[in-house]
Amino acid sequence: LKILCINPNSSKEITDSIDEICKKYALKDTVVQTVCIAEAPESIENYEDAAISTHHLLKKFKKWEAGFDGFIMACHGDMAVDLLREYTEKPVIGIAEASMIFALLLGHKFSILSLKRKSATKKEDLVRKYAFENRCASIRATGLRVIGDYGDKKKSLYQAAVKAVEEDRAEVLVLGCAGMAGLDKELQKKIGVPVLDGIVCALMLVESLVRYDLKTSKIGKFFKIPK
Amino acid sequence: LKILCINPNSSKEITDSIDEICKKYALKDTVVQTVCIAEAPESIENYEDAAISTHHLLKKFKKWEAGFDGFIMACHGDMAVDLLREYTEKPVIGIAEASMIFALLLGHKFSILSLKRKSATKKEDLVRKYAFENRCASIRATGLRVIGDYGDKKKSLYQAAVKAVEEDRAEVLVLGCAGMAGLDKELQKKIGVPVLDGIVCALMLVESLVRYDLKTSKIGKFFKIPK
Amino acid sequence: LKILCINPNSSKEITDSIDEICKKYALKDTVVQTVCIAEAPESIENYEDAAISTHHLLKKFKKWEAGFDGFIMACHGDMAVDLLREYTEKPVIGIAEASMIFALLLGHKFSILSLKRKSATKKEDLVRKYAFENRCASIRATGLRVIGDYGDKKKSLYQAAVKAVEEDRAEVLVLGCAGMAGLDKELQKKIGVPVLDGIVCALMLVESLVRYDLKTSKIGKFFKIPK
Amino acid sequence: LKILCINPNSSKEITDSIDEICKKYALKDTVVQTVCIAEAPESIENYEDAAISTHHLLKKFKKWEAGFDGFIMACHGDMAVDLLREYTEKPVIGIAEASMIFALLLGHKFSILSLKRKSATKKEDLVRKYAFENRCASIRATGLRVIGDYGDKKKSLYQAAVKAVEEDRAEVLVLGCAGMAGLDKELQKKIGVPVLDGIVCALMLVESLVRYDLKTSKIGKFFKIPK
Amino acid sequence: LKILCINPNSSKEITDSIDEICKKYALKDTVVQTVCIAEAPESIENYEDAAISTHHLLKKFKKWEAGFDGFIMACHGDMAVDLLREYTEKPVIGIAEASMIFALLLGHKFSILSLKRKSATKKEDLVRKYAFENRCASIRATGLRVIGDYGDKKKSLYQAAVKAVEEDRAEVLVLGCAGMAGLDKELQKKIGVPVLDGIVCALMLVESLVRYDLKTSKIGKFFKIPK
Amino acid sequence: LKILCINPNSSKEITDSIDEICKKYALKDTVVQTVCIAEAPESIENYEDAAISTHHLLKKFKKWEAGFDGFIMACHGDMAVDLLREYTEKPVIGIAEASMIFALLLGHKFSILSLKRKSATKKEDLVRKYAFENRCASIRATGLRVIGDYGDKKKSLYQAAVKAVEEDRAEVLVLGCAGMAGLDKELQKKIGVPVLDGIVCALMLVESLVRYDLKTSKIGKFFKIPK
Repeated sequence: LKILCINPNSSKEITDSIDEICKKYALKDTVVQTVCIAEAPESIENYEDAAISTHHLLKKFKKWEAGFDGFIMACHGDMAVDLLREYTEKPVIGIAEASMIFALLLGHKFSILSLKRKSATKKEDLVRKYAFENRCASIRATGLRVIGDYGDKKKSLYQAAVKAVEEDRAEVLVLGCAGMAGLDKELQKKIGVPVLDGIVCALMLVESLVRYDLKTSKIGKFFKIPK
Repeated sequence: LKILCINPNSSKEITDSIDEICKKYALKDTVVQTVCIAEAPESIENYEDAAISTHHLLKKFKKWEAGFDGFIMACHGDMAVDLLREYTEKPVIGIAEASMIFALLLGHKFSILSLKRKSATKKEDLVRKYAFENRCASIRATGLRVIGDYGDKKKSLYQAAVKAVEEDRAEVLVLGCAGMAGLDKELQKKIGVPVLDGIVCALMLVESLVRYDLKTSKIGKFFKIPK
Repeated sequence: LKILCINPNSSKEITDSIDEICKKYALKDTVVQTVCIAEAPESIENYEDAAISTHHLLKKFKKWEAGFDGFIMACHGDMAVDLLREYTEKPVIGIAEASMIFALLLGHKFSILSLKRKSATKKEDLVRKYAFENRCASIRATGLRVIGDYGDKKKSLYQAAVKAVEEDRAEVLVLGCAGMAGLDKELQKKIGVPVLDGIVCALMLVESLVRYDLKTSKIGKFFKIPK
Repeated sequence: LKILCINPNSSKEITDSIDEICKKYALKDTVVQTVCIAEAPESIENYEDAAISTHHLLKKFKKWEAGFDGFIMACHGDMAVDLLREYTEKPVIGIAEASMIFALLLGHKFSILSLKRKSATKKEDLVRKYAFENRCASIRATGLRVIGDYGDKKKSLYQAAVKAVEEDRAEVLVLGCAGMAGLDKELQKKIGVPVLDGIVCALMLVESLVRYDLKTSKIGKFFKIPK
Repeated sequence: LKILCINPNSSKEITDSIDEICKKYALKDTVVQTVCIAEAPESIENYEDAAISTHHLLKKFKKWEAGFDGFIMACHGDMAVDLLREYTEKPVIGIAEASMIFALLLGHKFSILSLKRKSATKKEDLVRKYAFENRCASIRATGLRVIGDYGDKKKSLYQAAVKAVEEDRAEVLVLGCAGMAGLDKELQKKIGVPVLDGIVCALMLVESLVRYDLKTSKIGKFFKIPK
Repeated sequence: LKILCINPNSSKEITDSIDEICKKYALKDTVVQTVCIAEAPESIENYEDAAISTHHLLKKFKKWEAGFDGFIMACHGDMAVDLLREYTEKPVIGIAEASMIFALLLGHKFSILSLKRKSATKKEDLVRKYAFENRCASIRATGLRVIGDYGDKKKSLYQAAVKAVEEDRAEVLVLGCAGMAGLDKELQKKIGVPVLDGIVCALMLVESLVRYDLKTSKIGKFFKIPK
């Protein structure tokens, strides 16, 4: 069972942290390889960043596709997930969708802890795309950037988490950026409700789909019209 | 990793078939034990059936709870899942919720293949409870009963499946009754879109939640008010 | 016209207060009898409480059913209403649904004054079950328990009511617990918008259904599959 | 307890049939008076019909208001209900809202049997206004006009009813025009699910609101800004 | 290209301000004529105001209809728009719908700056009627009356605008009353997000529909049933 | 007033037809220039097609941006509209959003005539993205490809149009592909309800936004985070 975890930005720091988490949580029989898109910006925050990264991803993915059983898109904007699901029939899981899905199983409603206002707005689009709006208590902007000091991240996340839980009645929290990877268990301990890192969720979901021998449905949305 | 799979009816045939599937798909390190509620009706089709089964389940669960890491409710009405999530903080997964969640990952919209009209209507309630209505293409009644001849089941399922895929634009199909357990791969092969057996989905989700060391959120809906 | 009003908990105090209200508002030709479930907990706050009460209710209801023209479930969680609607074709009305329905007739949106956070979350489920979410301004937790001092109840209700009316733009208020029975008119006078006690609403709705000679539809959701 | 039932068209035939129903179902203590708007068209089918009727209604209502405890708007478009709720604090009930509310209490979803396509489309607006769309199985156009032969009405209603129940999974049916008044019980008997005449429903609801001493909320939507 | 802009109240001040805006923004080839309903109240704030204005409008419109290519209803309650769309097949645009539609094109979600609480509640109905609720961040009551001092209007609008943008995440603002006409650009400059005056939006939309030679669909909702 | 109309595919035939329509409907003072993306596929049908086209578009757009007042994205998938709205503050209009917006102004609900099943499914996503699902009667697949014989297009469009109008109660029709450009008026004449070509709608909307001096809101979703 071979999984490719794609970090669509070029940050070595984030790639390493993602890789560490994947290796920590993977099944014994799972081989996870984490790659980044070296030609992409250091973080995917703009639509333009995503377009640039997607362009390079597409070329690389054609080579990567054959060597793996499933794929993780390690960007909490689920960038290019539809594109990859169209390209391959092997399972492709974005960490945003995965984290929201785990949240559904643990409590009434979840909140997403996102970065700045722009990112919060884009999460609203994502929640609506997946049609989880009736299970989403709120999307809280922490004011953080993707890359930054871990100490600041922890304080801002905690403050947003408290508001989500107390004012918005969130029962589960979702870390809204791959740059927050690894902060789940510490925040969970402090705040007292489940906190989800999408990397772990996506890894376990893609392993599950492979174990159950499932492929993306090719009858409609992800059919690849031949040229 | 010890999982208890609870068949809330008293049918030995269904219990055996569930157990077989659990054992087939469980991780090497997972020990799954399947139990039924001997005092319950042979199938859970009425609200009354569910109330009777719940009464006996509650008493038994108090003994079972300590011995397992997570629980599967193997009834596609997700009977008593809220009750068990309140009782224990260990993960509890119903096969309806699990099957719909897997469906979200594989295509645009899913259809549920249910039994008769009553069961189809109750599925509508369930889809709405989980707030998946915008991802659900349709709920198709097959006319089947829970217990019955496998040959009939296959024909009726196939006919409903064709309509769901062609008329309702379903891209993924969900088997809407534990009594259909094991019919997934054969139907999938015939119909050409993913077909999901909730037993397998629930097993993999509960394993995942345990592996990620997650507990049900106890801050709100599943808090147990002390008496 | 004989109505049975079922208090599903074992509190004599609540049973008496419900009975008094029923007798006060019933039509001259209506005979109302109020019963409680002596084997149930003193309040229905947990899913477990409801399961225990349901078990005993089911046995008793089989005896009660023949003697009445309609039934009130006097629990603002509308516990077992679906079950009773399946069991009998005579009208069954829960006080939560009834109170929300009256609220629809009196203003733009209503708020529910509930107990603690857990109960507020369960009301969200109920509002969604009945599909009234677009008419519900908010569900306000008062911090109250079912049983408790009336003076405290009044103060907490008033504070939550002010917030619902001023911050959430509620135009009508619903008392979210049978334990608040009888507090409607006093709060209404203080707050200046209609305040609804579900006992009264359910009583008048069940009388109306009987007068109009209506039965629960048995074609789908409430059909009783024969065993 | 004095109720005024307003037929907003000028059809004597419809006024008589409404009056007969009101008298048949009213409480012994209720005095119902039925009036029509003689200056209005014989049926309210266009927006223009409603505007003309509303103009005359408004003038008359100012005289009628003091003499009654509550009001029924006997038009299944619920014409001018908001206007009257603003004008008076006494309860005002439209027969469309009333019939849909009774339907909620009797089954999973209801269908409305309406006249032609235009009327069906306007019902969609009404269902959406009251936010009942998630409980409405369908709106079936029967092809009927408001005024017409009873024999034709029965046949067309029956045909639409069968489709609503069998194809759309309706469990309750609502007669979508005051011109269908009195056809409820006969259709119910033939079709086997509850069939609702909004006149009866509105009568019982307005009696109930008066008995419970409730007034329309005047804090927002129905506040009358002084000129 | 001749457009009639109808101010449905009798305020000369508002009529003049509307006329000035129409003339400022109209195409060179567009002739706009602005009329008011002299028999109507000075402002349309109550349902009764709207009914009175509609009565007179209907009589006048029958004369006006032939002389113009399209119509603007210059009332942010979109009073009588459905009626006029039924009466004529020429395009009719209300300024509320128009302003919300322009808002959709400029940002994620919009807020409406309305008058008092009653008017805010009626805007909720309007947003729901057009089904824009998922794009509407909030409806903020400014506490203003239709007629009033411009200085007060500016201050109240600014305060409500800041809250809409900062607390509700509105990205675009809509002026919710024809009495606010002409305040768009000044507020936009101060607040830094697009601010829309529905008069301008409606003018450009009606010009566009005429240029594209489009008529209101007469097959359903706006069909005029012959009497 | 200078508008750039971008055809994101490389088909000269489609570019010419779009250009002809733009020139036919533009204001006298509007200069429209139509460009295509020569490096893109001949039609944008797959997610991959869109990614390739977007990559080239982004590079070209940086040069184009300064020379125009507004932009049309002439692809009925509204490819890259968010990206361009982020890149520039000048108005950018996609032909899908534009055509649906015009449809809102002309009737109760609209249907989209799309190509094959995949394209119909992607339209569902688009309708949901813009939150128009409550105004969309249906999305009908015609079975057409982007490029193809005009005679076939007319027949298939007509057949799908009849079903949309008669079975789905659509009152307005939207041509769901730039390859259908120019077929609006002929189909409208045959079918008797308004038929919209998104090119015309987008042109008029972008002209309007420029005339009203409006810019895309940059406070949230379309803010460009500096790198």
